Formats: sequence, structure tokens, C-alpha cells
Amino acid sequence: MSAEQATAEIGDIIMTMADELAVHSEAAGMLTRTYLTEAHHGAAALLTQWMKDAGMTVRRDAAGNVIGRYEGAAPDAPALLTGSHFDTVRNAGKYDGNLGVILPIACIARWHRQGKRFPFAIEVIGFAEEEGVRFKATLLGSRAIAGTFDVAVLERADDSGATMRAVMAAAGFDAQALPQATHPRDAVLGFVEVHIEQGPVLLDEGLPVGIVTAISGATRFMVEVTGLAGHAGTVPMGLRRDAAMAAAEIGLFIERRCSAAKGLVGTVGMLQVPNGATNVVPGRAQFSIDIRAEEDAVREAAVRDVLAEMEAIAKRRNVTLTINRTHDAASVPCAPWLQQGLEAAISSLNLPVRHLPSGAGHDAMALAALTDVAMLFVRCGNGGISHHPDEIMTSEDAAVAADVFSRFVERFAPGR
Amino acid sequence: MSAEQATAEIGDIIMTMADELAVHSEAAGMLTRTYLTEAHHGAAALLTQWMKDAGMTVRRDAAGNVIGRYEGAAPDAPALLTGSHFDTVRNAGKYDGNLGVILPIACIARWHRQGKRFPFAIEVIGFAEEEGVRFKATLLGSRAIAGTFDVAVLERADDSGATMRAVMAAAGFDAQALPQATHPRDAVLGFVEVHIEQGPVLLDEGLPVGIVTAISGATRFMVEVTGLAGHAGTVPMGLRRDAAMAAAEIGLFIERRCSAAKGLVGTVGMLQVPNGATNVVPGRAQFSIDIRAEEDAVREAAVRDVLAEMEAIAKRRNVTLTINRTHDAASVPCAPWLQQGLEAAISSLNLPVRHLPSGAGHDAMALAALTDVAMLFVRCGNGGISHHPDEIMTSEDAAVAADVFSRFVERFAPGR
Repeated sequence: MSAEQATAEIGDIIMTMADELAVHSEAAGMLTRTYLTEAHHGAAALLTQWMKDAGMTVRRDAAGNVIGRYEGAAPDAPALLTGSHFDTVRNAGKYDGNLGVILPIACIARWHRQGKRFPFAIEVIGFAEEEGVRFKATLLGSRAIAGTFDVAVLERADDSGATMRAVMAAAGFDAQALPQATHPRDAVLGFVEVHIEQGPVLLDEGLPVGIVTAISGATRFMVEVTGLAGHAGTVPMGLRRDAAMAAAEIGLFIERRCSAAKGLVGTVGMLQVPNGATNVVPGRAQFSIDIRAEEDAVREAAVRDVLAEMEAIAKRRNVTLTINRTHDAASVPCAPWLQQGLEAAISSLNLPVRHLPSGAGHDAMALAALTDVAMLFVRCGNGGISHHPDEIMTSEDAAVAADVFSRFVERFAPGR
Repeated sequence: MSAEQATAEIGDIIMTMADELAVHSEAAGMLTRTYLTEAHHGAAALLTQWMKDAGMTVRRDAAGNVIGRYEGAAPDAPALLTGSHFDTVRNAGKYDGNLGVILPIACIARWHRQGKRFPFAIEVIGFAEEEGVRFKATLLGSRAIAGTFDVAVLERADDSGATMRAVMAAAGFDAQALPQATHPRDAVLGFVEVHIEQGPVLLDEGLPVGIVTAISGATRFMVEVTGLAGHAGTVPMGLRRDAAMAAAEIGLFIERRCSAAKGLVGTVGMLQVPNGATNVVPGRAQFSIDIRAEEDAVREAAVRDVLAEMEAIAKRRNVTLTINRTHDAASVPCAPWLQQGLEAAISSLNLPVRHLPSGAGHDAMALAALTDVAMLFVRCGNGGISHHPDEIMTSEDAAVAADVFSRFVERFAPGR
């Protein structure tokens, strides 16, 4: 078998594994796999089998994470961590999260066949929960491992009224033992997560992979505009206090301001005129704002400008604003030395090195509390659609990503 | 009693009558009076009594209109028509429509006390239905009198499932006799409607009354924008196809374009991102457009510009538009000779003459199919709020309007 054939083969293996894992769904005709459901247990069992077949020892921790350990040349060596989540959103795609568990397993299986060991261990973690669907709390698996799990969420109930604590107990996981899920810092060398981009940047530039610079920080607001309702026929334009047009003007300012800096995005995702009617000038409008940036200073400057412009627009239009800041999270930078390792791996395959921020949150964000983190993004098709059954990627890109990951590990030297 | 005292007195009389008529409501704690309900019958009975007390003969036609006739010096003379509707919207104000029935009754009562007759008859019509609440069809009363009643609406059902035909029959009105409700053209000299402005123009300019130049024509659209949904964190600004921002840009263009001409208004009254989420770039947005103008050419030019700009915005933003024209009505001009009569009446009271278009529809719009029409607008308070319990007007303005109407009638010379 030539090197090219081997590369093609690992891509097909990964795509087949993704198909097989996607069978484990709690909803008919679509992929939905939330924390500790039957489908979730089924996926965990399949991951466990694959890990064992790849020469790993496998354990589940108190959070339900599936942890496969590929020992180094010497036993009990510190481990390079990798992995991603195997829970999904409702009506999900097959690759979000899952790819980051499957791909390292496929790579390790290849090394296992070759009898290859490293001076360090590799742990592949299938994080049991990241999406936050069942208990409206995200990153549960990675937080347990990073030691930042908030025990208050154990009392949250799912739609059936069952608390997370009770659901865990019924599945054989002991919430009391969660502190022991935290990995000891001196046993960990770093964390590298492989993930589909969930956006169109790599697709747009014709690149199979990219290196994440940082997981963007985010600020969110909910805004209510109060103007004065009026008859659409009888109130002259100059006497209006139109709440919807104030919202429209603010939205377009956000769009313009957030187009002005690299790695900055701003979105009005919710927008509505409550009880709007064709013949009534809107007296009220509601909208959301989501501003993210790779660099906190860039985001904070944009937020300041947006708030100032909102005030100016409201004053000029004689409307009032109720602004509620609902979320504020700092950027999580990826470690330069790990990024350099990914750069070297990509360059060694004669591929262009592209850096980009991750606008979405990922398990790496939580792991950053424990160790240095990095992320390898893989191109997705269909305009970058994710969290949707139309989420796709190619076998060729899976193979490239597997080779980049393999080269990275093969050249990995702990520490910076 | 001085002239000033007499003027003050008729204002108070009109305000008291409005209060007494407002008692007839089908909903507790608010004014709601829809076609042929018990409340509607009660209001019709009170109007009938007032008309009789003012020296009029009263009849109901097949549509349920209440018609009071104050004979001229000679019997069977052609009549100057006046009046407005006595049905209301849900949770209405007391003056919309009702004022236009009450005020002429109060004026005629004054002439009746003085023993005054004119070379023409005066008919005060309480139109039984204008708002379209119960059967989702508007202007039923005035259309019956103008001969433009669409018999197809007789089969429409109210919320209880009863058809208009059945409701009319139960109330003793014969739908078969509707054609006889049409007034013979040669018996009619013109129609003058007194109505609150339902807008802020007179209030803003400190004027008690104004003369309507035309009832604005209107064009309405429902628009759906389709872009591409995406992750608010992962899709860079330059790669977005944001449906909501396309809608916002279109809305602001409409606002700007419709501010550019006198008597032109444009409104986006409905606006929403269906199933919008904070972290999702909107792939879909829906909004309404309502464009009105005194002059049809002005409206049509604005509509053309808006449609062209919508296309340009959609093209630039790579979104598609589904545009549905839901309404298109030409402007109904008020007759210059009747406007001149109102001008003379206002001037004779040493008040400034202000002309303005009516952006809202009125019974006069339907009557224009039968005869020349004119409208006298009366200032309303509270920023011009109408169709709402906060709709107000003053006794002083009622008195001024009554005096303008009286002078107009006293100087009225049929024909142009």
C-alpha cells in the first residue's frame, strides 16, 4: 500500500466511523444524542469498543466521559490529551464534536497496527456533554476534567423534570465523585482538539484545515426599544417615534462596525415587533446583539462603540432603550507552542498554513483552565452549515486532518 | 346667552353625548361595539332618539344604517349628507366615527330650537359598519348607501361561525333589500364628514380643525427575505447573507424615501425573524410595507423606487425576496368646491385654514362613488392616538368644529 493509498484509506475509515456513530440517536430520522440517554450510552459503548480495538485502555469518569489511554513507551507517562464531545444538538450533523473523538482513534489504531509508541501517553476523551441541550448547561464533560464543574447545575431538571443528579445516578455515575474526574496537572502535557470549522472560511479559501488562534470572547445583549405606536397613514414621517426603524438603524450600525476589524463579528439574531400590524407604526421592538472577537480589546472597543451609537440613535429618534447584558466571556487564546506544532505538521504536508479564530465555543475553552490548548479546524461543506443535518465534510479532508494530527503527535515535544 | 357661551355650550353637549353613546359597549371596562351586536342596537336606538329630539325623521336601511332627515324649507328637497360610523374597533376611543354622527345632530338640534330650515334637506347618517372588525370587511354601511356593497361578503362568518347574512336576518335586516339602500344620485347634494384627525398634525401645529384634501391612496406589500442562516460566531461578516439586515436596510430606505415628499408616508409595521436565536445569523425575515400618499403619482413613484432599491439591496446582499402586493387603492380626492365651503367657514371664525391629507380610510372614501365628498378633521390630543382608550379631544375643539360645520351648512350652495 502506497502512502497515498494509506491516506485515502484513513479518510474513508473516519467517514465510516462517523456514519456508524450517527446511528445512535434518540430521535427517529435525525441525529439527536443528548446527555445520558440510551442513544448516548450506545455511542459511548461503540467509542469504548473502537478505543480498545486501537490498543487503548478505556475508563468512564464520574461525568460519563469516555477516556481511552494509549500508553507511551514507558507506563504512567504524562499524557497529551485530545478529543471532543459525542453529545449532539437536536437534529444535528454527524461531524460536530464526534469527528474530534473518531479521528484520533483512527490515528492511534494506525500507530497500534505499526506497533508505534511515543515518549508520552495519548488520551482520547469523548466528552460526554458539551452542547447543553438536556440541562441547559454547557461543557459539562470538559469542565469535569478541568476541575471547573459547577455543582449547582446538578440540581437542574430536564424537560421530564428529572434532575441531572438523579439522571446521573440512574445511569451509574456518582455526582459525589465528580471532583476525582479532574485530571492532575502534572499528568497532562496539553490538549489538542480536532473539530469541523462550523463556518465557511476554509471552504471559501479552498483549504482543508486551519489552526485556531483563539476561541473568541463574546458579549451579548437583549434590547427593547420603546417608541410611540401610531397610525401608519396619519402620523407624518417627521413626527414618528418608530421603534422598529431605531432597531434597524442599530442593527446596520452593528453590522458596519463589526465589519471594520479582523476576527470581529456582530449579529442581530433575534428581531421582532411584538404584535406588529401593517397599518401601525411600531411602538415597540426587541432584538438581540451578539458581538465576538478573537481579541478582547477588539470586542470591548466594538461594544463601547455600539452602546454609544445606540444611545445617539435613541436620542435622535426620541425612543428609549432597555439594554440587558446577558453574557460576557473573555477570549481563550490557543498556546503559541502548540499552534507552532500544528504549523509544522501542516507545512510538512506542503499545505498552506491558515490561522483563524473560532467564533463558536468548544471543549478546548474549558480545558484551557487545566492546560495549554490548541485546535485544528477541518473544512466543512455546504457553505459551512453546522448544527444541521446538511453539515458535511469530505473523506479527503478527513484524511488530511488525520495526517496533520499524526505528524503533530509524531513531532510532539512536551513544553514550550 | 352670549355667542361665546352658546359656543361653549355646544362643545359640552357633544362631549356629553359622546360619553353617553360610549356606554353602549359589548365588552366590560372598555368600548367595543361591532356590527349588529346588542351594544350596536343600543347605540342605534340612542342615536334615533337624539335625531328625533332634534326634529328629524329617522329610518334604518337594510344595512342597519341610522338615517335622520332634517327636512328643508320645502319637503322632499335634495339632501346634503353628513355622518360617520357608529361601530368601533375593539377597546376603542369614544370619538372615532361617533363624533361625526353626534356633532351634526347637536348642530341640527340648535337649528331646530331656532326654527331654522334650509333650501335643502340635511341627512345625518350613522353608518352601521366601517371598521371591519366582525366580518373582516370594511365600510359596509357607506358602501350600501353608495351602491358599491359587495354581496359576496354576506357569506363571511364572524368568530362564532354566523354568516353576515344570518346575523342581519336575526337583527331584522333583509340582505335582499340592500340594493334599495343605495341613495338616488339626484337626491344627494354632497357628503361632508366630520372626524377626529387620528394623527398628530393639528395638535403639533396648535390648530383645532383642518380640511382634508384627499383620502390617501395606499399600496401594501408583504415581503419575505431568504438569506442563509449561519453561526453568529463562525461566519465572518463578509461571507454573510443576513436576511434581517437586508430587511433593516430596506426599512430604512423606505423611511428615507417616504420622508422626501409632502403627504407621503411609508411604514414597516410588521417585522420579524422567525425562530430567531441570539447566536444564529438570520436566514429568514418577514416584514410588511405600507406606502400612502395624497397624490397617486407621488405614491406610485415611491413604490417604484422602493421596489428598485429592494432589488438592488437583495442583489448586493445575495438574498432573495418574495414580494406579495396585498393592497392597492387610489387616492380619493375631496371636492374643491366643498373644501372651499369649509375654508370660508373656518375663515369666518378667524381661524387659520390648514389643509392636510387623510392617511386613514373613512366612510367618505366609499361615498365618493355616489357624490362629491369633503371632510373636516378635528384635533385629537395625546399625540394623536386613536383606536385606543387614550383617544381624546376637547370640548373647545368640539365647539369650534360644530361652529365650522354650522357656518358651512348655513352658507351651503349646492353644486360647484
